Amino acid sequence: MTIEFGLRGTFACETRISSIIDDELAYAGYSIEELVDNNASFEETIFLLWHLRLPNEDELLAFTEMLNQNMAISDVIEASLKIQCRQNLHPMSVLRSTVSLLGVFDRQAEVSTPEATYEQAINIQSKMPTIIAAFSRLRRGLDPISPRSDLSFAGNFIYMLEGNEPTDVQIEALNKGLVLHADHELNASTFATRVCASTLSDLYSCITTGIGTLKGSLHGGANERVFEMLEGIAENGDTEAYLQKRLDSKEKIMGFGHRVYKTVDPRQKYLKEMAYELTKGTDDEKWYTLSLEVEAFIREKKGLIPNVDFYSATVYHSLDIESDLFTLIFAMSRVSGWIAHVFEQQNENNLMRPRSKYMGPTSLTYVPMADRQVIYKEVN
Amino acid sequence: MTIEFGLRGTFACETRISSIIDDELAYAGYSIEELVDNNASFEETIFLLWHLRLPNEDELLAFTEMLNQNMAISDVIEASLKIQCRQNLHPMSVLRSTVSLLGVFDRQAEVSTPEATYEQAINIQSKMPTIIAAFSRLRRGLDPISPRSDLSFAGNFIYMLEGNEPTDVQIEALNKGLVLHADHELNASTFATRVCASTLSDLYSCITTGIGTLKGSLHGGANERVFEMLEGIAENGDTEAYLQKRLDSKEKIMGFGHRVYKTVDPRQKYLKEMAYELTKGTDDEKWYTLSLEVEAFIREKKGLIPNVDFYSATVYHSLDIESDLFTLIFAMSRVSGWIAHVFEQQNENNLMRPRSKYMGPTSLTYVPMADRQVIYKEVN
Ligand SMILES: CC(C)(COP(=O)(O)OP(=O)(O)OC[C@H]1O[C@@H](n2cnc3c(N)ncnc32)[C@H](O)[C@@H]1OP(=O)(O)O)[C@@H](O)C(=O)NCCC(=O)NCCS
Ligand SMILES: CC(C)(COP(=O)(O)OP(=O)(O)OC[C@H]1O[C@@H](n2cnc3c(N)ncnc32)[C@H](O)[C@@H]1OP(=O)(O)O)[C@@H](O)C(=O)NCCC(=O)NCCS
Repeated sequence: MTIEFGLRGTFACETRISSIIDDELAYAGYSIEELVDNNASFEETIFLLWHLRLPNEDELLAFTEMLNQNMAISDVIEASLKIQCRQNLHPMSVLRSTVSLLGVFDRQAEVSTPEATYEQAINIQSKMPTIIAAFSRLRRGLDPISPRSDLSFAGNFIYMLEGNEPTDVQIEALNKGLVLHADHELNASTFATRVCASTLSDLYSCITTGIGTLKGSLHGGANERVFEMLEGIAENGDTEAYLQKRLDSKEKIMGFGHRVYKTVDPRQKYLKEMAYELTKGTDDEKWYTLSLEVEAFIREKKGLIPNVDFYSATVYHSLDIESDLFTLIFAMSRVSGWIAHVFEQQNENNLMRPRSKYMGPTSLTYVPMADRQVIYKEVN
Repeated sequence: MTIEFGLRGTFACETRISSIIDDELAYAGYSIEELVDNNASFEETIFLLWHLRLPNEDELLAFTEMLNQNMAISDVIEASLKIQCRQNLHPMSVLRSTVSLLGVFDRQAEVSTPEATYEQAINIQSKMPTIIAAFSRLRRGLDPISPRSDLSFAGNFIYMLEGNEPTDVQIEALNKGLVLHADHELNASTFATRVCASTLSDLYSCITTGIGTLKGSLHGGANERVFEMLEGIAENGDTEAYLQKRLDSKEKIMGFGHRVYKTVDPRQKYLKEMAYELTKGTDDEKWYTLSLEVEAFIREKKGLIPNVDFYSATVYHSLDIESDLFTLIFAMSRVSGWIAHVFEQQNENNLMRPRSKYMGPTSLTYVPMADRQVIYKEVN
């Protein structure tokens, strides 16, 4: 048996939720072009991922209402967010802890029938934007804003952040961003989520796993770091020198490269378009222009392609979202995919338990403490 | 490319931490027989897993002291445990949330140098027993008990649960249990932990992932269910009828079967011996006797072998631990292995990102809402 490092190209399971075929991403058979070009809503996309078909009008209405009615967070969750407002933490740690606490306070969390799991799914999906917006306000010393029943998922998030009426342009941009990030086959966080589900653990455990795994800089954590890099370049003033230095020191350039896509990330063109539309003629246009420069340089020097995280940084920034919340926006979208994968894993479960190849010494003899005089050389 | 369901027999990575070769489990080259028969302490075992060699006397002293000094939990963590004391929750959800919160309150949680990660490791490893014991007391309406600097890891846990001086027999039994559960190659929770680490997420995210994944009934959650089953049988009075009914309804018998071991789980004999030693002549002997009956019946009927969780249930029960805390004891041991695997993953990182095989329809056309009159048949 050979070993594929990082499980590169290995099939870990079957799925009907999403596919990447010839650099095209599709959700349950609908390409993301088909969905985005037809202005599919994020709510509709969640339904598609969870039910593997599009809803009809009545179903979508009922589904949207259900999400809406579950958005508000309890006082105890709000209190715990307040306690978590402190220096030096990462907001993804707060999201991880708070979603985990939702599970502690859900009296049905241990019930694992499909119906109960579906209710838990609605609970988590609806409360993610509220938690993120509330945290963003609390740490600025402001009171959280309650969700409104007349706004969409995307609209509500923008509204709960600042309390202003969201504009159509803002809603459309965030909605598109959410649709594009909703699922992505067996990316690392979805994969970890499925491993968790495969032990028959509860949904809150699975989603906490997804959040913790998305946080890493090689995965969802990249979009935040893209913006930090753009700011670093702007400060430095010399794009090529800045990037060359990073390349020379073997640092990864955030927002570039992909395990599966090698010629194009199909999500990227939409985010690039949006970044342009949202910033043109504004102060933020400089980030778009700078991004173009970075893209050209990295393509030429390393042949690497921008991935979903690269232009999403400028898009979220232009929506007035603080850069350390970018990965949380990713999470409030991707959670829809994680949940779909948990449903699927539960339907046809098989414990995900691979082997590892042992490379160390064998049959060592325990040396009594008194005889361990020497400090052995460290092995790793 | 064929697909191995549940990644059965697939190598997901290389390791030097532990091995299962010919149904023998070894930590960094030392078989568990070698360690247990020589009365290795759990502290020594943690050092072995983290450094891939045994400590000498000075090193072990320093290491034990470091663990000891970090055991106490802060007021804010204790307060959060108090808030989490409620009905219908699972204590593993509390452990998951509380370890996640440790990460929020660790000002260094975002620093990822090897030194900082090692400090976080000590922080998590030392505080797990304190968190579990404090929670157990708080939900009984009692005040938590602070750790003592003169007790071992195992001794401190027993002490913090009830405030009584732990006996040598109790300490030895728990220590052995901890050593036997410390690591187990790429079991599901360790695997999920490594997937999380492979995105370069922080240690608290990785361990939260491990806890959530261990919670499942096919994995660590089994030991608690073993005891529930024993109680169910005792109540029912007819062992064979009870088990046969479960088998007929295709329910899994908890504590039996294993993905890797097919003839014997090498950890089981020690737990069985301990269960005998701890219960003989006491009221609890009935659980041991009942376990023997169950083992014989399931072996004969299904050819299944008892795994690590089967006799550990009786061992933990005889140590006066409530059955819904059994999986938490497993976690406070296995966390040492999770941490070792995170160190190793960080040392030679490769993003764990497999593929999934798409089985659904392709190239579907988006149907405008107005044309979606029919309620399509549910696909799953
Ligand atoms: C996404 C990513 C983890 C994919 O990793 P992977 O499939 O393991 O690809 P590899 O790391 O094997 O990359 C192949 C080569 O390209 C290089 N490379 C890949 N992405 C790079 C990047 N962003 N910057 C610089 N070099 C990169 C690698 O160093 C490697 O070079 P080598 O063969 O000389 O060692 C990787 O591209 C990356 O780290 N990107 C930056 C983080 C990011 O944007 N993540 C979000 C993904 S949506
Ligand atoms: C541990 C476990 C998940 C391993 O699973 P696995 O490698 O996927 O093994 P499989 O489920 O393919 O088992 C093979 C066969 O044995 C049966 N089997 C395995 N464990 C069983 C159990 N505990 N009770 C009844 N039947 C069992 C399976 O139903 C299957 O039968 P089939 O071929 O007729 O479908 C499984 O044995 C189990 O669920 N055990 C109970 C939970 C437990 O004790 N977990 C702790 C493990 S340390």
